[in-house]
Amino acid sequence: MAQFSYELIHTDKHTGARAGIFHTPHGDIETPIFMPVGTCATVKSLLPSTLEEIGTQILLSNTYHLYLRPGSEIVAQAGGLHKFMHWQRPILTDSGGFQVFSLGKLRKITDEGVTFSSHIDGSKHIFTPESVMKTEHDLGADIIMAFDECSPYGCDKNYAKHAMIRTHNWLDRCAKVHQNGSQMLFPIVQGNMFSDLRVESVKFVRDYAECGIAVGGLSVGEPSEVMYKMMDDIRPYLPENMPRYLMGVGTPDYILEGIERGIDMFDCVLPTRIARNGTALTSHGKVVVRNGIYKQDFSPLDNECDCYCCRNFSKAYLRHLVNCKEILSAELLSIHNITFLLKLAEGARQAIKNDNFAQFKQNFYANYYNNEK
Amino acid sequence: MAQFSYELIHTDKHTGARAGIFHTPHGDIETPIFMPVGTCATVKSLLPSTLEEIGTQILLSNTYHLYLRPGSEIVAQAGGLHKFMHWQRPILTDSGGFQVFSLGKLRKITDEGVTFSSHIDGSKHIFTPESVMKTEHDLGADIIMAFDECSPYGCDKNYAKHAMIRTHNWLDRCAKVHQNGSQMLFPIVQGNMFSDLRVESVKFVRDYAECGIAVGGLSVGEPSEVMYKMMDDIRPYLPENMPRYLMGVGTPDYILEGIERGIDMFDCVLPTRIARNGTALTSHGKVVVRNGIYKQDFSPLDNECDCYCCRNFSKAYLRHLVNCKEILSAELLSIHNITFLLKLAEGARQAIKNDNFAQFKQNFYANYYNNEK
Repeated sequence: MAQFSYELIHTDKHTGARAGIFHTPHGDIETPIFMPVGTCATVKSLLPSTLEEIGTQILLSNTYHLYLRPGSEIVAQAGGLHKFMHWQRPILTDSGGFQVFSLGKLRKITDEGVTFSSHIDGSKHIFTPESVMKTEHDLGADIIMAFDECSPYGCDKNYAKHAMIRTHNWLDRCAKVHQNGSQMLFPIVQGNMFSDLRVESVKFVRDYAECGIAVGGLSVGEPSEVMYKMMDDIRPYLPENMPRYLMGVGTPDYILEGIERGIDMFDCVLPTRIARNGTALTSHGKVVVRNGIYKQDFSPLDNECDCYCCRNFSKAYLRHLVNCKEILSAELLSIHNITFLLKLAEGARQAIKNDNFAQFKQNFYANYYNNEK
Repeated sequence: MAQFSYELIHTDKHTGARAGIFHTPHGDIETPIFMPVGTCATVKSLLPSTLEEIGTQILLSNTYHLYLRPGSEIVAQAGGLHKFMHWQRPILTDSGGFQVFSLGKLRKITDEGVTFSSHIDGSKHIFTPESVMKTEHDLGADIIMAFDECSPYGCDKNYAKHAMIRTHNWLDRCAKVHQNGSQMLFPIVQGNMFSDLRVESVKFVRDYAECGIAVGGLSVGEPSEVMYKMMDDIRPYLPENMPRYLMGVGTPDYILEGIERGIDMFDCVLPTRIARNGTALTSHGKVVVRNGIYKQDFSPLDNECDCYCCRNFSKAYLRHLVNCKEILSAELLSIHNITFLLKLAEGARQAIKNDNFAQFKQNFYANYYNNEK
């Protein structure tokens, strides 16, 4: 496992925020980091060269989607996901667990695994810990996630406990079949919104963690305070010597609150999804570009941003593109939104090194929330 | 008009094909040239920086669309189309004539102009030669087209003649109100598929041509031979000392046949439109990327192409993107298709300089049509 290591550069004196470097076979990742999501082996609307230019250090891609289309064996034949999608920096694949559980009536969970019907053509499939490891090996990402059961928010403690135990058993099965030294398996902490289950889970899964551990099943509908409490409760038990990844979390405030609680890695479809709906994240809050007040606004989206979109285009132009349903609006807003979250992580990293993360967070909130339009 | 000039570099010894340089306020254009179309002030799905990288020398944009959205006064306030859409090289705007005539029952033509209902919201508008000049001045393109009437293919000679006379009268009115030395007005030859009308038209409009003349109303449904005959018939009357633009023409064969007949400029939505439908133009014919035969084809779209798409991605990946309706497929195929037509024009230019354009055309056809899949 010498291909992977985590270097803890500095821990903020006043919070749990950490700055580090995660070394992987496809390059170093400076943490904390935001990972754009490339669901179907493409970060929607963006050329890989554009993603590189804006400083993307690592991408996430989805095992469930790639398993169905084009099929992981096609990706393997292409030489793996890096070659297939022409991305030379690190990639992380999820396990497909969250996607198949989200299928609702289309899936059935047993101790063996999950049987489900494809959302595309209704065809029947089964994911087991063993099959998912095989699929993730085919895809060939640097970081691969264990197959877990994400119990729904609001379920009772008994249900949550059984899902957690199953997650632990599945982790053990994943670890047994994962033999590939060039891919790092991240175990996932579950336990729903029950502190004792969360603590039990982190204590169990950390023994499987070689260089990375993930927290799943948060930001699934619970109040922010509940989510923050879960993170606070498990924090004392998270290993120091490896990166910690909070799955599926990507609003600016959740990222900052996660960083404060010692989280190093984040991912979310938010920046690209809202870009396609014509919404931008800016240092002064969200901007709904379609809004009529921007019709003759020839200033950039975000004065404090130096991305390709903000350097070259006005709100009036972006509004025009959104109004005309032009694809370019999705591209320019995606460039901006991803840049925004990458810069947020970069700003946090600098602040941590200067031991003033709390101040950084407070300043961000003051700008972001006092000006939201 | 010193800001515009045309330098005839060489005329092919065996055909009418010309290589030249068209000097404009926003830079030189090496002719023959293909102009990608940016209907709504964006070449669909492509960043301006990408268009520059692939060697786009000049873009076309549509007056009708920009008049409706965002409105030419907004573009004027932005500082003109170049600033609005962040394109620093030359731009050509059409007059909106073709678009409003294509509205069918939604428009009414009189000698004064054309009243029409917007295809977007049904609102009533009128285009006159004077109003169109005002709109094109607002947009601020380097090259602006006169307001003309494009009579439909299949109309009788009387109809065609009246439309031609109206076009000539409108040209005169356009010229009277066009006072802007930084924009070059191109008159348009009409006359439908009647040789004597075409000749009459070119003789009339060339007196208005200072540095550029256009041929409209071809490639509107007529057989290829009819189109070629019209071009042959007017060729002796086209001025030598300025660029000639064949409007709306953009299939590879029509471009080559146009070049052979002394045409210098071409535009068409074809490369970007078929890209969005998953089709590529390649040196071995059209490729329908969705086709199942490409599922495991890890070779590039076109072995003879060195564009970003062909350098980095396989047909299998492109097919996957098209299947998943991923926006990136439109971008990558647009990059390739535009590059393909730009390289076709560049290849023709080189061949003309070497006096072997006919051979160049023959070789292209041999590859393109013997291998179409």
